[in-house]
Amino acid sequence: MKADPPAARLSDAALAGPAQPRDRRSIRRTNLAVVLRILRDGGPRSRAQIAADTGLPKPTVTSLVAELVALGLVREGPAQREGAVGRPGTLVHLDGRDICGVGVEISTSSVHVLALGLGGATAFGHRTAAAVADMTADAVLDLTARSVRTCLTALERDGVRPVGITLAVPGVIDADTGTVEYAPALGWRGLRILDGLRDRLERPVPPLTVGNDAKLGAVAEYVHAQGAGVQDMICITGERGVGAGIITDGRLLLGSTGFAGEVGHMPLDPERRPCVCGRTGCWETMVGLDAIFRLAAADGDPVRDPGVELEERLAELRRRAESGHARTRQALDRVADDLALGIALLADVLNPQAVVLGGYFSHIGDLMLDRVREVVRARVMAPDAGGCEVAMSTLGFRAAAQGGAHLALDAVYQDPGAV
Amino acid sequence: MKADPPAARLSDAALAGPAQPRDRRSIRRTNLAVVLRILRDGGPRSRAQIAADTGLPKPTVTSLVAELVALGLVREGPAQREGAVGRPGTLVHLDGRDICGVGVEISTSSVHVLALGLGGATAFGHRTAAAVADMTADAVLDLTARSVRTCLTALERDGVRPVGITLAVPGVIDADTGTVEYAPALGWRGLRILDGLRDRLERPVPPLTVGNDAKLGAVAEYVHAQGAGVQDMICITGERGVGAGIITDGRLLLGSTGFAGEVGHMPLDPERRPCVCGRTGCWETMVGLDAIFRLAAADGDPVRDPGVELEERLAELRRRAESGHARTRQALDRVADDLALGIALLADVLNPQAVVLGGYFSHIGDLMLDRVREVVRARVMAPDAGGCEVAMSTLGFRAAAQGGAHLALDAVYQDPGAV
Repeated sequence: MKADPPAARLSDAALAGPAQPRDRRSIRRTNLAVVLRILRDGGPRSRAQIAADTGLPKPTVTSLVAELVALGLVREGPAQREGAVGRPGTLVHLDGRDICGVGVEISTSSVHVLALGLGGATAFGHRTAAAVADMTADAVLDLTARSVRTCLTALERDGVRPVGITLAVPGVIDADTGTVEYAPALGWRGLRILDGLRDRLERPVPPLTVGNDAKLGAVAEYVHAQGAGVQDMICITGERGVGAGIITDGRLLLGSTGFAGEVGHMPLDPERRPCVCGRTGCWETMVGLDAIFRLAAADGDPVRDPGVELEERLAELRRRAESGHARTRQALDRVADDLALGIALLADVLNPQAVVLGGYFSHIGDLMLDRVREVVRARVMAPDAGGCEVAMSTLGFRAAAQGGAHLALDAVYQDPGAV
Repeated sequence: MKADPPAARLSDAALAGPAQPRDRRSIRRTNLAVVLRILRDGGPRSRAQIAADTGLPKPTVTSLVAELVALGLVREGPAQREGAVGRPGTLVHLDGRDICGVGVEISTSSVHVLALGLGGATAFGHRTAAAVADMTADAVLDLTARSVRTCLTALERDGVRPVGITLAVPGVIDADTGTVEYAPALGWRGLRILDGLRDRLERPVPPLTVGNDAKLGAVAEYVHAQGAGVQDMICITGERGVGAGIITDGRLLLGSTGFAGEVGHMPLDPERRPCVCGRTGCWETMVGLDAIFRLAAADGDPVRDPGVELEERLAELRRRAESGHARTRQALDRVADDLALGIALLADVLNPQAVVLGGYFSHIGDLMLDRVREVVRARVMAPDAGGCEVAMSTLGFRAAAQGGAHLALDAVYQDPGAV
């Protein structure tokens, strides 16, 4: 068979409007970002290696590294020796110990503040348990402002500069106006959360933004999965509500107005049970936290008591399942089947390489995983389920705050000189 | 309220691996492509206007235009006068009359070959009606090869050079190996279609590629919708099977192995009717061609006769609906509700600006459109359905071949100098 000349392929089809023309300044900015990302994704390396990785001339690399050193984002130091022979080389390392991004997750049961340095180290972390779903929006904002102030004070004391703060909220967000349009689990509608927080902080704060918790969780999972080269993934968070953060071709899928990923309301339940959203048959009535507790335990059973800490109730479910408790095991099988039904649907639509289960699934999902995988394999249209792997999140309830911190740091990776 | 410094935002989050570094040659190539796309998307304009649109210096624009003229891709000519006063300027126009892309759609009922010039004019078009679903794969390949040969001969006679040929097939495609992995409507599995076609053509042919028909239809709809600035859309094709081409943020969504968009097999039917794919409850059993005919007419009714031309059967359905025939109208309402259910689900997951209904919907979908819109508006989670508009395709059964031709031409817009 003779070789074929290269053809246009769907996978190459950007098909976009006019590309941006390029000038010298934008080239410099891009190349600084390229070097910084190579160090983030691939670890420390020599200037010669950076030149080889990027195809840039060595003098250009030297000048770029010098600028990044001056910005406090990288440092140069000797290589680890670990049994190597010969002269030790000098490696460029990601630094940025003095810079961090802050993520703040407001969930139904807590407010979690997390500050991550450029290299990924935790600069500050604190979780305040609170019955957020039962509090007024003002009270939640007061609590959030207190948590953020504590964090900013601690960072200031340690000489660490926050480059941005991202709030993560379980709801439909208008990022342009900083508004939570609708958060059924919190009972919020049209809450201008960034204005509310800014008013309460009463001090200059770094740039504030707000995003959907599932999308920010997906950002954290994506950063986490970088070693494996995953570019197409769906991160499903199971709490009272069920949401998804979708990454396609290495980009977070937002949709035209930022509302993509509302998978909890896919109409999959033939029994058409009512949902908190006012509709019936939503997927989250089949696989959300309320469903697993309702299926696994009778009214009045302590695992159904919202006054008991969630992680404790999940641990109790696990103990029962492991000791062979019939109702618990049946409940897990039922949720596994319904979870797989929705995952298979999403795999047919989006063809991801990985589906990552977060939220409560990261606590008891392993008890369902074999069954979920089996049903997904049987149900997805593409051969071999289109290569889709179902896996447990290792980040758990921490994912959204972590994703928020990563997003704040992303400004540095986009344009290192601007920070 | 004081102004906020710019924050990293989810919408900016490329979050990708290392960006590509840029050099002078890649800048030149990009700028050639930018000028060509501006002429495609915005129409003829002066060199001064191109400089203003791109931010490039005028001498650079002059040199880029000269190179594009030499490549035969643009020409310079006087402006239209239409009542204007003053000296007529010189405008740069897209040319490329001597260059075309070829799309070939193999559907269950025909083989359609279409050649489009760079400016969008049809250089060749021919549709051969055939009961493709009942033919052997070899016979279909023979027919396709004959159609392509006829097209190439006609183009050669007219002095038009094809830059690529794209096959569109209703199935799951492995583009890397040119294989139709699975096309249930045609009964194909593992068919190496490009090898088969290349062997039969027995002459040098331009680069060949193969893609899923719904995805290629979406490419055509996207190009068509460019004037409206739509960057997030879902194109649903209704034939015996139902598929989707999904465009997010101006890019065709492929998924990790190219299998995204298999929406026809979403498990939405509570009655769990069997599907050709071997599973039950698939959406296409509710809204595909077989469903509308089964619901609208009794066994033995001529509209259910596959021997009668499809467009004729659809025209008869329309006549009955318009004359108030009860069963036909009930069938349309039922399909409208089920169509809306799936569209609302996809809008929750993907938050598109537009859902475009193609295939048979472009023939009778207007009879369902009001009802579909109403149900979608009630069912989608985001406020105001996330801004999602449901519209009819104006391209109809022609969309996939047209998208194939556009895709072949995209090579020119990606890298004008290489063609």
